[in-house]
Amino acid sequence: MKAQKVEMFVVPMAAPSDTSGLQQLADAGKIKPDTLVAIAGKTEGTGQHDDWGRVWADVALRQWTSRFLGISIDDVAKQVIFVLSGGCPGVITPHIAVVTREWVEVADSDSQTEKRLVVGRAGSEPMPPEEVGRMGQIRKVAEATHRAMADAGLTDPHDVHLVMVKVPGLTTSSIKDAESRGKTVVSHDLTFGPEGAGVYANDAAALGVAMALGEVKESALSDGVVRRDWSLYSEVAMTSSGGEKRHGEVLVFGNSTASRSSLVIGHAVTKDFIDAEGVRNALRSAGLHFDGGLPDETDLSRLVHVFAKSVIPGSDQIRGHRITLLDDVDAYQIGKALGGMLVASVTGRTTNYVSGGERNSHQGPPGGNIIAAVVRTDG
Amino acid sequence: MKAQKVEMFVVPMAAPSDTSGLQQLADAGKIKPDTLVAIAGKTEGTGQHDDWGRVWADVALRQWTSRFLGISIDDVAKQVIFVLSGGCPGVITPHIAVVTREWVEVADSDSQTEKRLVVGRAGSEPMPPEEVGRMGQIRKVAEATHRAMADAGLTDPHDVHLVMVKVPGLTTSSIKDAESRGKTVVSHDLTFGPEGAGVYANDAAALGVAMALGEVKESALSDGVVRRDWSLYSEVAMTSSGGEKRHGEVLVFGNSTASRSSLVIGHAVTKDFIDAEGVRNALRSAGLHFDGGLPDETDLSRLVHVFAKSVIPGSDQIRGHRITLLDDVDAYQIGKALGGMLVASVTGRTTNYVSGGERNSHQGPPGGNIIAAVVRTDG
Amino acid sequence: MKAQKVEMFVVPMAAPSDTSGLQQLADAGKIKPDTLVAIAGKTEGTGQHDDWGRVWADVALRQWTSRFLGISIDDVAKQVIFVLSGGCPGVITPHIAVVTREWVEVADSDSQTEKRLVVGRAGSEPMPPEEVGRMGQIRKVAEATHRAMADAGLTDPHDVHLVMVKVPGLTTSSIKDAESRGKTVVSHDLTFGPEGAGVYANDAAALGVAMALGEVKESALSDGVVRRDWSLYSEVAMTSSGGEKRHGEVLVFGNSTASRSSLVIGHAVTKDFIDAEGVRNALRSAGLHFDGGLPDETDLSRLVHVFAKSVIPGSDQIRGHRITLLDDVDAYQIGKALGGMLVASVTGRTTNYVSGGERNSHQGPPGGNIIAAVVRTDG
Amino acid sequence: MKAQKVEMFVVPMAAPSDTSGLQQLADAGKIKPDTLVAIAGKTEGTGQHDDWGRVWADVALRQWTSRFLGISIDDVAKQVIFVLSGGCPGVITPHIAVVTREWVEVADSDSQTEKRLVVGRAGSEPMPPEEVGRMGQIRKVAEATHRAMADAGLTDPHDVHLVMVKVPGLTTSSIKDAESRGKTVVSHDLTFGPEGAGVYANDAAALGVAMALGEVKESALSDGVVRRDWSLYSEVAMTSSGGEKRHGEVLVFGNSTASRSSLVIGHAVTKDFIDAEGVRNALRSAGLHFDGGLPDETDLSRLVHVFAKSVIPGSDQIRGHRITLLDDVDAYQIGKALGGMLVASVTGRTTNYVSGGERNSHQGPPGGNIIAAVVRTDG
Repeated sequence: MKAQKVEMFVVPMAAPSDTSGLQQLADAGKIKPDTLVAIAGKTEGTGQHDDWGRVWADVALRQWTSRFLGISIDDVAKQVIFVLSGGCPGVITPHIAVVTREWVEVADSDSQTEKRLVVGRAGSEPMPPEEVGRMGQIRKVAEATHRAMADAGLTDPHDVHLVMVKVPGLTTSSIKDAESRGKTVVSHDLTFGPEGAGVYANDAAALGVAMALGEVKESALSDGVVRRDWSLYSEVAMTSSGGEKRHGEVLVFGNSTASRSSLVIGHAVTKDFIDAEGVRNALRSAGLHFDGGLPDETDLSRLVHVFAKSVIPGSDQIRGHRITLLDDVDAYQIGKALGGMLVASVTGRTTNYVSGGERNSHQGPPGGNIIAAVVRTDG
Repeated sequence: MKAQKVEMFVVPMAAPSDTSGLQQLADAGKIKPDTLVAIAGKTEGTGQHDDWGRVWADVALRQWTSRFLGISIDDVAKQVIFVLSGGCPGVITPHIAVVTREWVEVADSDSQTEKRLVVGRAGSEPMPPEEVGRMGQIRKVAEATHRAMADAGLTDPHDVHLVMVKVPGLTTSSIKDAESRGKTVVSHDLTFGPEGAGVYANDAAALGVAMALGEVKESALSDGVVRRDWSLYSEVAMTSSGGEKRHGEVLVFGNSTASRSSLVIGHAVTKDFIDAEGVRNALRSAGLHFDGGLPDETDLSRLVHVFAKSVIPGSDQIRGHRITLLDDVDAYQIGKALGGMLVASVTGRTTNYVSGGERNSHQGPPGGNIIAAVVRTDG
Repeated sequence: MKAQKVEMFVVPMAAPSDTSGLQQLADAGKIKPDTLVAIAGKTEGTGQHDDWGRVWADVALRQWTSRFLGISIDDVAKQVIFVLSGGCPGVITPHIAVVTREWVEVADSDSQTEKRLVVGRAGSEPMPPEEVGRMGQIRKVAEATHRAMADAGLTDPHDVHLVMVKVPGLTTSSIKDAESRGKTVVSHDLTFGPEGAGVYANDAAALGVAMALGEVKESALSDGVVRRDWSLYSEVAMTSSGGEKRHGEVLVFGNSTASRSSLVIGHAVTKDFIDAEGVRNALRSAGLHFDGGLPDETDLSRLVHVFAKSVIPGSDQIRGHRITLLDDVDAYQIGKALGGMLVASVTGRTTNYVSGGERNSHQGPPGGNIIAAVVRTDG
Repeated sequence: MKAQKVEMFVVPMAAPSDTSGLQQLADAGKIKPDTLVAIAGKTEGTGQHDDWGRVWADVALRQWTSRFLGISIDDVAKQVIFVLSGGCPGVITPHIAVVTREWVEVADSDSQTEKRLVVGRAGSEPMPPEEVGRMGQIRKVAEATHRAMADAGLTDPHDVHLVMVKVPGLTTSSIKDAESRGKTVVSHDLTFGPEGAGVYANDAAALGVAMALGEVKESALSDGVVRRDWSLYSEVAMTSSGGEKRHGEVLVFGNSTASRSSLVIGHAVTKDFIDAEGVRNALRSAGLHFDGGLPDETDLSRLVHVFAKSVIPGSDQIRGHRITLLDDVDAYQIGKALGGMLVASVTGRTTNYVSGGERNSHQGPPGGNIIAAVVRTDG
């Protein structure tokens, strides 16, 4: 019987085009052309839709991977999923988390009761611009999520703790293309503002995950609910979008008894934007058993990585008091930065994956945010 | 024997010109013309040097106070100290903390061993533009701090836990004035950037407090050390500057056995920018005795207010990892916002006074920030 | 027979609350309580939807006017139209243009063939949030425009050269109100971004003017064309919106033989974003007859004021070359600033009314902008 | 006798890494490894000191050039001068101007009286961080300017119409380096704000050019005059700085009878920030003889390129009226954008080289800006 063994390496980047950390992992034999399955990271730059830091990082990492795998750049996406989230405002260190998956032979009798980390990936059907932020995108993400779960060997949605998705957004030229064919698009705003194409794409992707996992029934979904009916959401979807993409890419993380990894993943949801306890709950969910209210250094030494969303609440009230974030011109940057602080103040480190800044989202419940944690087991 | 009884009321503001909270306090008899000594708060707006939200709030609050006290607007500053810090990015609720001081008669025999909150205030000599950010400003703040301590009835610097100072900054016209008289000014940059007049003024004020309290020897001070020798700092100074001012204003908070307040103040310093434990230490210093690592709701119900700085570290490293905040165009806003999150994630509320965003400061040690807390005693 | 005599005074403001220029006009007898009909101006600040400079200016100017007219602040809007456009980026001097209208007795025989400046104003029916950016708003602006034309004594749309409109936009609370009543709103984005409520309101107002003037047929209008069908537009509408408003306000400027003003208004449309000749054409349209390609100082001395839009083109091409303005995070400020430069480089002065920054608009044809000019006649 | 023949090709870029225009020039035989001497351009991105668009463009263009010349990337700088100015706000098309220089044999008797375009280049001695913005940098730029003039075959400073310089700025790490060696640096501010290291470097470079050309006497120069004594300036220096550089690079353009180019260069200085006539004067200086006040299309068809500075005036007044640009948080972007509009409104095209945004500079007289134009001769 073949069993997965998944590893995750967190590597800081000194510049958008810095691939030295990847090279060191390769030189040390920790990643191999046939084990490298995903690179998820935070790139420095503004994080806005025209952030050249993110684009440059994407080009540089794909070039390196293409050489490492000995395949063409265009074929890289078929083997390795890239989820690069732009923008490291505040206390978010530019970094990548490199995910490997090895298949090890285990005796059929060698049963294991503890669930350990597995990973699966899938590409979606192409998504034309008129589908962005709408049912077409939702359904194609749902379908790809199912295939990624199968790739991970997961069948029970409760074993899924994190689904990272990258989907096509809109660009000036893709809008022109759609409209020249008589189609409408969901938005003419290319930003991540509240009616921006970027957030519509992200939110359709999140609803696609929710549909795949049964968090939301397909019958409850329609074009009209996207960014309107906030009672519909996923608790494990972290999604992003880029104008340059044509297909969606889905990366599923979960736990399975069929895994031989030494890692476990867990997740939790914060109850509101300042809820540090929600972050600690995610760590507990992944198996950190810190005594008292706070983890100590020994606890934290087992923490491998945190993936967090930092969506701005749709209300101007937190615990009964007004905040002005919704009205803030710089809210996109500040909202992301605040999530970085919330997580870093708990984990005691700045190499956390934190994306966000959108005003409201179907990624997590209204006001709350998703936090996933990967922890190394004691044994 | 006359003894101080100090109270502090935290009042959210719904708009820069909102004085309804003040009026309610007045209507309820909680503040009186002869007890109102200070208003310290956070105003909404960009927080930049030309933030009209802060200016408008200042005008509106002074007008209200002028009517309340029955004196001219120009005379208000002689009786009531205003420390309005602009900018409420993120999770900082626009609010004011209204400070009253009553003198109650106590029997000489009625001795008390516990130290309780006292407050003192003083205005400084006028500070011409050529003194901003230099020894002239430092010495005048030091002198005013001594007088404010005397006004508070404090003699031991260790009893001082917070010194809020507002001093003149520079403006286009005050620079022109100085240079027309053959004087130089410390900077031509009016922003709060690393060489901005705003931070030079703030930092000279902080060194003035440090000199007054003996945290730094006068002999160690010179024009050249301001914003250059970071080993010199105060652990209790929170300073700000405004181009419209001509004098400095100093507000000292400390604890004294001569006080009959039911409030106590304490303070601590964070060890770095993500140090939530530093915030908790400030709460402990003021007398919150929360068990375990975290305060619960009963603990927090005794917390009256937190005053915090959120100065951006001068290094691009936090606990060994690179952050890009120093290079960030929006660092001033983000840096302030991050302090708001650090405090709110501990206090569970957003009505905290958090000023900052400067890159490095003599307010607090390198990398660390000052947090002061006011707590209601159990008894 | 009564005839209008309209004057316009351009007054710089030294701060958002500066009413000294108004006071000087009043002291000099140039404006009187019964002649003051409108104040249109540019206020300093960010110009964003939460620009406190604009709000403060509005409050200060209304307070002054209320005292000047001897009526309550709430009644001011019934007598004087305020069109304050926030944001003076670049070379736009904060200022107001104060418009007066006097009724002078002229003999019936005293006929005049030259058309001169007239002004008319009207308030609209209240516009609930669900009408913002939609047909409800369009129709109510059209209706008010008809009444403002009547007030101006204008019947032929060709005599109308400028229609300034201020309408309600959306706010967090008005959206909440609409949705609590089961209504939808046109956008959840409060900014002036491409799908922002601010631009939907502005554009519905522009289409309302276009409908009133016959520039667009009512049958061509529907909710769906707003910010989608750019072939529909007005060549004389300059519109703005503010969340605090409940009614629309319309101010019509045109020329009439029934006027005894010494001023004339004209307008033109630029062919693209860098078309300085379009600005010169507006000056010519208002009666400046400069010889050669350029006006000289004598020509310009007759120019009283310019009102200009600076809408960002919806295409990323200008005369065949790509620009990146559509993708620029700061496009709203920069787009407005660029119009200020285009106009100032022609008029040789910075006290021009320039509003804009939106990406595309029904105010003017695709890519072009409306410029109106008021000129003093020779005689 | 060998004579220079200089050509200039203006090539739009579709993205920061777009080298297709260069490749087309190479394929068409217009540039050759031994004729390519300089690439000066505007790259898209924020234009701030951490603008990854500019950095990426620099890397991509150098890589292409390295392959084209068949030399290592590190050696490229010895043969080809790169002056890439970041930021294309508003109506500035991302582009490069590619400069070639060929040496043609002419008979000694073949004398020519008309002066035509020549170009020369030189690298400077290395500039350590403590010299940035100070006399060390000034002197080294002056020295390199002399050598670049010699390389161009120019001896009379009046024949020099444009000197483009790129010098080292400061970075967090170069500041650390200097201070660890007991040296001070001119500023701790890495931005292009009024006391930023970027502008100090730019301005020292400008004074270096001024010293070389005799516009300013060496005896008038000292560390203390940089960004303080605005009466000292160059009328032909356009300078920029980058933290990544260690040497200065100087590119001199002028006219000489020894040239066999069909191009001529000229320059002028605007009298203030809105002076379109100053731009027209630059075109005239280069030999465009447009009749009337304005150039027509035939005139403009001979215009090859415009190089312009857009430095923000140090005063808050333009022609007697206040502007708020000096106080504007976004002034750096807006100031640059405004220069782009001023030039484009005259040239009728957006492919102009416009750098700027600094508040005040020794590049040009106080309030005015340098405009250089390259024109193709009639013959």
